[in-house]
Amino acid sequence: MRIVVLAGGIGGARFLRGLLRAAPDAEVTVIGNTGDDIFLFGLKVCPDLDTVMYTLGGGIDEERGWGRADESFRVKEELAAYEVEPSWFGLGDRDFATHIVRTQMLDAGYPLSAITEALCHRWKPGVRLIPMTDDRVETHVVVDDGEGRRAIHFQEWWVRLRAAVPAESITAIGAEDAKPAPGVLEAIGRADVVLLPPSNPVVSVGTILAVPGIREAVVAETVVGVSPIIGGAPVRGMADACLTAIGVETSARAVAEHYGPGLLDGWLVDEADAGTAVDGVTVRARPLLMTDVEATAEIARAALDLAEELR
Amino acid sequence: MRIVVLAGGIGGARFLRGLLRAAPDAEVTVIGNTGDDIFLFGLKVCPDLDTVMYTLGGGIDEERGWGRADESFRVKEELAAYEVEPSWFGLGDRDFATHIVRTQMLDAGYPLSAITEALCHRWKPGVRLIPMTDDRVETHVVVDDGEGRRAIHFQEWWVRLRAAVPAESITAIGAEDAKPAPGVLEAIGRADVVLLPPSNPVVSVGTILAVPGIREAVVAETVVGVSPIIGGAPVRGMADACLTAIGVETSARAVAEHYGPGLLDGWLVDEADAGTAVDGVTVRARPLLMTDVEATAEIARAALDLAEELR
Repeated sequence: MRIVVLAGGIGGARFLRGLLRAAPDAEVTVIGNTGDDIFLFGLKVCPDLDTVMYTLGGGIDEERGWGRADESFRVKEELAAYEVEPSWFGLGDRDFATHIVRTQMLDAGYPLSAITEALCHRWKPGVRLIPMTDDRVETHVVVDDGEGRRAIHFQEWWVRLRAAVPAESITAIGAEDAKPAPGVLEAIGRADVVLLPPSNPVVSVGTILAVPGIREAVVAETVVGVSPIIGGAPVRGMADACLTAIGVETSARAVAEHYGPGLLDGWLVDEADAGTAVDGVTVRARPLLMTDVEATAEIARAALDLAEELR
Repeated sequence: MRIVVLAGGIGGARFLRGLLRAAPDAEVTVIGNTGDDIFLFGLKVCPDLDTVMYTLGGGIDEERGWGRADESFRVKEELAAYEVEPSWFGLGDRDFATHIVRTQMLDAGYPLSAITEALCHRWKPGVRLIPMTDDRVETHVVVDDGEGRRAIHFQEWWVRLRAAVPAESITAIGAEDAKPAPGVLEAIGRADVVLLPPSNPVVSVGTILAVPGIREAVVAETVVGVSPIIGGAPVRGMADACLTAIGVETSARAVAEHYGPGLLDGWLVDEADAGTAVDGVTVRARPLLMTDVEATAEIARAALDLAEELR
């Protein structure tokens, strides 16, 4: 079976771990969000790609959900001693190596998709991981936090401000001119099912779908999504702040409707949201808390079963 | 008193520490060798500048003589796990931060001299440290080690091969087209004395003097050198391998003669080399082992006393 997953960071990575347990023989292609990417200290950082790579490759810090296990922060401490900004982004020493290798390859002319493949040669995540695009896309957020109304990088809003300042708007700069990375449309076209994990529907899945050509390719397939909202609140993270910014209610139903007519065929909601109805979408209620790998595998099995029914 | 020192790495840095003890009120400008500089993993590394900066700023690893005290090597271990070369250069985690800051500033368009000044803003070395040039100069070494005759970066010869393979020639690529960095010629022109510490006479002091304009400016001043050769062997390091490559005998006399007619006014040799005579140069024998800061200060005092006599 060929499965394509549109993934953000922590939620997507954890779902994928369950999916690989549920369907160990499937050929899984992950289209990763790169709208969160940021240059820090001159180095290219791809938080979502790395979270997927580290999680599936056994290198993730399980407690935090991002960054490397057994991590230290000596480079960061030294950068702070040089009074170099920003200090609010948590780059660990082991993690730095990934960004150094990536940046060196970028400078040598390799596209991000080839670099990601090279990094995965070490990590062997068990999936084919492709960035949504090789072009630069950067999610910016307009805020007014007292220092004036201005657009800041998504990471500054998310990490430094912890999304506590309301976002007036969220825009994936460069998305409309971006081209899907090599292999993205082909993988979707060959897929038996496209899964939307419980990633952030705005800045993760939404950004991937904003790259011209991807939404159209996905719409043509059997698509089953897993709601990132349970009982009116995000499973984890601050997706509600993103939904509010784009005028979407924080509910399993509203997210499904936001994905747009024709995109979703099936939608898994939590048992707390049983009874949710979405026009033109088959909704099924299941326990959606990814408490451990086996519980997550059960969610993946439910998504695959629903897809099988709907094909 | 205004003192200019042409310095390489470890030997130069240790001499400087003694000099600052001997002449605490002097205005000391250090012209640093950049021929050893190398791009590693896309980052600009300046070993000699950093050794001076860390040593005088209290951050050096005293045992090794290079790199940071209390250092760890986690980034390097991770780079090795990615199978990224080279693995033979010892970059520590704390040290990496310096190279990251430097490279980011280079990419932003700052010249190396301005970057060095910015880095020294943290380290406060007690001297003005200026790279010999803002232009790229790279010392290459021609070797024939069985893999064929070829030119390799000085660091590869020095660190990876430990200078065990004979150098057929040593060339500072780019030196002849390089311009002295801002402030270099002015500092020399205003100096009461120019000191040559016991740095490598070929790849450190020799490379600095190879930048057009610097030798001419130095020749016009009172110049006192400290021999890096004691009793026919280098005080430390492998200077003999460099001298052999350029056809100069490993002796205190031969090095003084190599610096060329008119450059040196005074030459301190070790007591083991008492009786050394060099045409046109006042030679004085003193204990030259830099066993500790006070012993080194004594050497610096002897050099300054000799300069005073010769002015």
